[in-house]
Amino acid sequence: MALIVEKFGGSSVSNSERVKHVANIAAADYKRGDQVVMVVSAQGDTTDLLLKKAAEISSKASKRELDALMATGEQASAALMVIALEKLGCPAVSLCGWQVGIETDSTYGNARIQEVGTARLKAELAAGRIPVVAGFQGINYRNDITTIGRGGSDTTAVALAAALNADACKIYTDVDGVYSADPRDVKTAVKLYEIDYDEMLELATLGAKVLHNRAVEMAKRHGVKLEVLSSFQNHPGTKVREVTMEQKSISSVARDADVAAIRVNGLKTSEGKTSRLFSLLADKKVNVDMVFLRDGEEKSEVCFTVAQNNASTVVEVLCEHQEELMYEGFQVEEGVCKVSAVGLGMSSSAGVAAGIFEALYKARIPVKFITTSEIKVSILVNEEDGVKAAAAIHDLFF
Amino acid sequence: MALIVEKFGGSSVSNSERVKHVANIAAADYKRGDQVVMVVSAQGDTTDLLLKKAAEISSKASKRELDALMATGEQASAALMVIALEKLGCPAVSLCGWQVGIETDSTYGNARIQEVGTARLKAELAAGRIPVVAGFQGINYRNDITTIGRGGSDTTAVALAAALNADACKIYTDVDGVYSADPRDVKTAVKLYEIDYDEMLELATLGAKVLHNRAVEMAKRHGVKLEVLSSFQNHPGTKVREVTMEQKSISSVARDADVAAIRVNGLKTSEGKTSRLFSLLADKKVNVDMVFLRDGEEKSEVCFTVAQNNASTVVEVLCEHQEELMYEGFQVEEGVCKVSAVGLGMSSSAGVAAGIFEALYKARIPVKFITTSEIKVSILVNEEDGVKAAAAIHDLFF
Repeated sequence: MALIVEKFGGSSVSNSERVKHVANIAAADYKRGDQVVMVVSAQGDTTDLLLKKAAEISSKASKRELDALMATGEQASAALMVIALEKLGCPAVSLCGWQVGIETDSTYGNARIQEVGTARLKAELAAGRIPVVAGFQGINYRNDITTIGRGGSDTTAVALAAALNADACKIYTDVDGVYSADPRDVKTAVKLYEIDYDEMLELATLGAKVLHNRAVEMAKRHGVKLEVLSSFQNHPGTKVREVTMEQKSISSVARDADVAAIRVNGLKTSEGKTSRLFSLLADKKVNVDMVFLRDGEEKSEVCFTVAQNNASTVVEVLCEHQEELMYEGFQVEEGVCKVSAVGLGMSSSAGVAAGIFEALYKARIPVKFITTSEIKVSILVNEEDGVKAAAAIHDLFF
Repeated sequence: MALIVEKFGGSSVSNSERVKHVANIAAADYKRGDQVVMVVSAQGDTTDLLLKKAAEISSKASKRELDALMATGEQASAALMVIALEKLGCPAVSLCGWQVGIETDSTYGNARIQEVGTARLKAELAAGRIPVVAGFQGINYRNDITTIGRGGSDTTAVALAAALNADACKIYTDVDGVYSADPRDVKTAVKLYEIDYDEMLELATLGAKVLHNRAVEMAKRHGVKLEVLSSFQNHPGTKVREVTMEQKSISSVARDADVAAIRVNGLKTSEGKTSRLFSLLADKKVNVDMVFLRDGEEKSEVCFTVAQNNASTVVEVLCEHQEELMYEGFQVEEGVCKVSAVGLGMSSSAGVAAGIFEALYKARIPVKFITTSEIKVSILVNEEDGVKAAAAIHDLFF
């Protein structure tokens, strides 16, 4: 008898038919003899509709009240799921964050889970019921409702799996797993049946919106065995876990077109100007991604990438602080694209970067710049070359 | 500085404009220096929409889950109200039943309030905030969400007013008070500025849907000063309280067309058959209203009224138990109407019933039967005579 936490996202419970459908998935596991804990998101666009109502009343709604408002979406979803489970003959019980005892800090809208109570869940499981937990929500020390940020139901599921020491945590979504590349870009992309936590983290950061980053981090920290799979198709998904065996150097290729490159000339890294620029950007919540820098007598320059909607903030910061930063000039390039190859085996396989360079050279794709880490190589190319570059790198390794 | 509990029903908060409007009402009192506790219902038809969703999934949803589902309506409403109050510069905080500590029994769907915590409310008031409480909901000893039945937000408001020893409890609704008769029936109807708890109770039972019965009972028990007034118009409403002064014999005339009369011939009250019939009906949750009976050698008969949708149940019970009840036959009359006059002064004013009989005789309205209590006279007439009868009785006393 295994204990499984199963999370179903907004598209998996978007209407009554979908609720009934996914209730069947959990009911099948329950009837096979497993203990099942479900975590559900709000139905479809419920959260957006609630936020729209708040916006009709005030553009400056307090975050405490927005959290109390939004939490109703998951609560309703959980109750509806129990109603569907009961119809299938499975005893079940809906539980809000406060009923489970999901304690968070008080950062309304983006709270961190600090502690997960297990007494109520264990009592319900022992009574043979399926607890259906409202995802995305908790309570703080004041007994006030908090929410844990977009995609937070993934994190709720992993936190429950960790606290209950569950045998598996299944994240049901609208894609059927993690692929070696986006199948829309690369026809030869294959589904990965297994991936390491760190690889998944890099991919999540790279914009593969399959799993929430915080959920992956928490799963890694607590050794929770994750599986990403589709609630629409009955296929095995992708298992995310500690991968110890030898494996090929690259797991997956990701493409991210939401990138702007900024090139700042004459910025002296040796005089602390680069770190000053980056701390100014951090104050404005701008995440700096690929960084390339050269510092010298003749010519100093710093290149980096940011998300496209941050480019204007970078320009503002540069203009406001020109005197202090003492650079000569800057350019913003917007028609660019980042292609990344991720794989645990990369650091031990010589020549990965060289192979990538050669593949791109053969495909006549100019590389703007490249950064490497232990398990990732990212290259920046022109936007129109993105898909071709992803395919070329993918074909090299698969 | 007074402490006022103000309750706003579903039509008073049906959309964003209405939420902003009623926030102004509470904000004005707050800014005048009063301490205000708000109680809100779910917006407009939210509760019905949620029940429809549940019905799409299963016709046999458990009451526990329906309560968890419906409670989201009031929670959302409370958060939206706080957002509106904050925009008006009034610090406020939304609170669910479980956060206030509204403890109920476990009769999901129709729970009774057993205890009301005041610590959180008093702390929020002391901090200068307006607590906005989600009406209609509580928690039971298991920490599960309960709801306290239709119209329950009135009861929530009165319970909070009693627990906090508030100076007044204002029930804002879509009518501007209690009238001496339904103004649609009787053109000369006047608004009552004051009415006794018992009179209000009789009127509530008679179908004047201004205040929930349980709320009036609780207000009477705890001496809570109620006022019913309109959130749409800025008029004084009707105050419900202990009326000690002398007053006229009749306060109000009510008409109820949702009535069926049943006449059972040959039912022997002296042999316990009447009480047996009524206990069979009680088992089926049929409320028996006006009762007239005659027991004799020659002819025994029992007449009584029920709500129209209960008539078929009465027929079923009579048919199933004909042998046991040993009656001769029965008739169901559906085109009838009950007109009642309510007034504390009635018992001490001689001739009220006589006056009513005379007024109806003059208006040529045949009376089918009549029942009287300490503060109420009800007559049964043909449906088409109902409005005329209400007007005739009203004109007699006003």
